Amino acid sequence: MVVLGVDPGFHVTGYAVLKKDSGVAYLIDYGCLKMRSTDHLSVRAGQFYEFFKNKIDLHHVDQVALETPFLGKNIQTFLKLGYLRGILYLLADQNKLNIFEFAPKEVKSSVTGFGGASKEQVAGMIFRLFPKVAEFGGVEKNDVSDAMAVCLCGFWKAQQNPVFRNS
Amino acid sequence: MVVLGVDPGFHVTGYAVLKKDSGVAYLIDYGCLKMRSTDHLSVRAGQFYEFFKNKIDLHHVDQVALETPFLGKNIQTFLKLGYLRGILYLLADQNKLNIFEFAPKEVKSSVTGFGGASKEQVAGMIFRLFPKVAEFGGVEKNDVSDAMAVCLCGFWKAQQNPVFRNS
Repeated sequence: MVVLGVDPGFHVTGYAVLKKDSGVAYLIDYGCLKMRSTDHLSVRAGQFYEFFKNKIDLHHVDQVALETPFLGKNIQTFLKLGYLRGILYLLADQNKLNIFEFAPKEVKSSVTGFGGASKEQVAGMIFRLFPKVAEFGGVEKNDVSDAMAVCLCGFWKAQQNPVFRNS
Repeated sequence: MVVLGVDPGFHVTGYAVLKKDSGVAYLIDYGCLKMRSTDHLSVRAGQFYEFFKNKIDLHHVDQVALETPFLGKNIQTFLKLGYLRGILYLLADQNKLNIFEFAPKEVKSSVTGFGGASKEQVAGMIFRLFPKVAEFGGVEKNDVSDAMAVCLCGFWKAQQNPVFRNS
């Protein structure tokens, strides 16, 4: 079982890939895709598609996990988040993957055991489970840990209590 | 110049294709894509992609026109409209097309001359310009006329005052 967790954004998209092998879960890939805000949305849609198409092929992903976004202050930003999610749904269809959405509460609860956990508590748990992710520099660390959290949630939903290790 | 206008929806998607040839605009294709609400979103994302990929190839489309949606009562429906729009952005990138979004006011104003026109006034103008569209049966007639309106808007933005004819 290989789960790809994605936290999509038109500037920074965090992603993480967990693989289960002989009962052990390995974090086999994680990081972020940065796209230029000066590029047209269609160009970024194309880059996003190619990036995740390659990740899916490379790691033989069979599940995609996404967090259901909440409506923030900017409605157009919210709509545009849908653009990238739509591309992941398309990739799921083209590659015969399962795709799951989780409410923020579900993600928090599956990582920390508490649905009302703060962003920092979730990130703290992720960094404890996967110390390598904590070393990921800069602002993008949060995008990576968000993707890790949803990936873990997808992973746990499919398989209870695996042992985690960094690969 | 060939313009594809789309009014996306996970149940019914209206579309229209206008082509300019020797100074005359022809309505070369119009109709709707119906998808089953029992199919998974990813399956419908795949159907949507294939449908419009084929239309773009068939008609040598070089422009895509979309209306910016407004936030209705249902936030999740609004987000999901973004999914299909994202797929159109991806197709625009993959096929090197221009893609334009128009505010509802712009669409109404370019079709009827008045940004505050009602849905019925816009549809009435479309049916007068393209009597064939009026013959399109059932509820889907509105989806087709909405797509026609945004297609016309895209067409007019690119080229002022062409002569319209049904092909």
